[in-house]
Amino acid sequence: MIASFGHGDKTLAFAGHTDVVPPGPLEQWLEDPFAANIRDDKLIGRGAADMKTGIAAMLAATERFLARVPAPSCRLMWMITSDEEGEAEYGSKVIKAVLDEQQVKLDYCIVGEPTARMSTGDTIKTGRRGAISARLRVFGKQGHVAYPQYADNAIHKMNRVVSTLNALQWDEGSDDFPGTSLQITHINSGGFTDNIVPAQCDICFNLRYSHRFNQTELKTLIADAVATQTDDFELEWERPCEPYFTHPQKTDSLIGHAEQAIYKHTGVFPVLSTSGGTSDGRFFADADAQVIELGVPNASIHQANEWVRLKDLSLLENIYTSLLENVAG
Amino acid sequence: MIASFGHGDKTLAFAGHTDVVPPGPLEQWLEDPFAANIRDDKLIGRGAADMKTGIAAMLAATERFLARVPAPSCRLMWMITSDEEGEAEYGSKVIKAVLDEQQVKLDYCIVGEPTARMSTGDTIKTGRRGAISARLRVFGKQGHVAYPQYADNAIHKMNRVVSTLNALQWDEGSDDFPGTSLQITHINSGGFTDNIVPAQCDICFNLRYSHRFNQTELKTLIADAVATQTDDFELEWERPCEPYFTHPQKTDSLIGHAEQAIYKHTGVFPVLSTSGGTSDGRFFADADAQVIELGVPNASIHQANEWVRLKDLSLLENIYTSLLENVAG
Repeated sequence: MIASFGHGDKTLAFAGHTDVVPPGPLEQWLEDPFAANIRDDKLIGRGAADMKTGIAAMLAATERFLARVPAPSCRLMWMITSDEEGEAEYGSKVIKAVLDEQQVKLDYCIVGEPTARMSTGDTIKTGRRGAISARLRVFGKQGHVAYPQYADNAIHKMNRVVSTLNALQWDEGSDDFPGTSLQITHINSGGFTDNIVPAQCDICFNLRYSHRFNQTELKTLIADAVATQTDDFELEWERPCEPYFTHPQKTDSLIGHAEQAIYKHTGVFPVLSTSGGTSDGRFFADADAQVIELGVPNASIHQANEWVRLKDLSLLENIYTSLLENVAG
Repeated sequence: MIASFGHGDKTLAFAGHTDVVPPGPLEQWLEDPFAANIRDDKLIGRGAADMKTGIAAMLAATERFLARVPAPSCRLMWMITSDEEGEAEYGSKVIKAVLDEQQVKLDYCIVGEPTARMSTGDTIKTGRRGAISARLRVFGKQGHVAYPQYADNAIHKMNRVVSTLNALQWDEGSDDFPGTSLQITHINSGGFTDNIVPAQCDICFNLRYSHRFNQTELKTLIADAVATQTDDFELEWERPCEPYFTHPQKTDSLIGHAEQAIYKHTGVFPVLSTSGGTSDGRFFADADAQVIELGVPNASIHQANEWVRLKDLSLLENIYTSLLENVAG
């Protein structure tokens, strides 16, 4: 969804997504994951933090802002997708393509992702690491478990490959960017017969990487590591996400406006961070646009009983309202 | 089916099964798998070697033997099941329980499994390794791949567990028994989401073990090995099969009688072997019973176009006839 309001020279856009990750084991949830139940001081549900409440705060803040400033100095825009947690092929990437086609230039972009550590406003993101995923299949030789000497167990072989990948040394990161890491996200050896040594085994894995690496280097490094254990494998790369970084500007800085809005409501300035996963911010970042991410605490995202404290949610609404006033008031 | 004939002091039993494994892809068969078609010098069909023809040879040999020896010195018995290739819960295990209930003691037991390498009589089995399977689940903590420090990757943890299991030192075997081995037969981490660190990972594995181990020891050894890597796991044991071994006896040895019968028809003595998978022999072996397995070549079992050479089949009939004469004549 792309919605806009007003006709200022510059454009201030909010970006967000309505899709969520799967709930995981339902028996671990204290409340229905697909409802918004309040328990003590928290709202519980899948998407409570990542990021249905971020969208709610954007809309409520805009309502309050427009009641005070009916003719803002900027064009306002909302870019809402439901393909962020998955492949992200049909979400913000498509929105950016449509905007480019219509020659709509973004000047300020606020992504409502949950960026806070302890309470809303303590941390904003000004960039993100790169990410890339892969599927690896290694081949062995099927046989009977009673005669392992005539077989080549693909699971045993994959186990050595995973050990090798996990032994790789990555950079630990810098002030601007956190380090690189590799996580195996899936493993499966296919059909199961109790007396058969399996002939193949698949894994999926995901890399988050700092600006010290580029994708070409990473691909070579991984393929070389796998090849130390077997030459009988297939490796496919998927979902490459390049890193992005918004440099602080001397004048008219979106980061500065956000810092002022946060200070007004919390009395402290936020930490500027580039840690964590990839985000849709990468699609909107270009030479013109200043992109930041600012939202509620992320401690519970993607977990059972995902929650947001009610006070963090209303604080976000207040900060967004002041940010609108600072930029477009 | 339990059938018996005669009333000797001792009991000589034949054991066999009529069930077969699935035919696999039908287009790979040159003849109908569920018929007995002869092509050149071979009979082709599912069960041709494992082990419908073994049962045919037992029956034909008994007919010939009884024509010559109408009142044998042993009670003769046939124990035929149709649950050997599957779980083997309702086959020979049940037969042995019925025999125990009726206080029927077996002295000699000939299992008609295909034991030969090249031609009937070249190899007989005098024992088998034990087998046991297990399912292991290890638990981690789900989280986002971008924040691995807040998650505990169950695949990475299972990788360390599998490395530990594969590093266990087993006996390499002796002349009587091949060694012990452990094979991972399946691995799966469940649902897949590209940016989620998985919370659990399952493996199945199978152990083939020599008489140097018993199941209680093995279970403790494996559980202790897993516990060196995690205390958050579930381990379930399945399909235990104890080993059996018929020691050659100085007098009245079934192995000796079989060797003589084979030598009479082939001019060579058989290799005594305990290799290969488990068999129903384990159910009949006890302090009283001498158990051997003696049958046609096994090169084609469980494969498309399973076959037996006609000459190997009639040779088995001849050997069984002489064996009956040697033991019960």
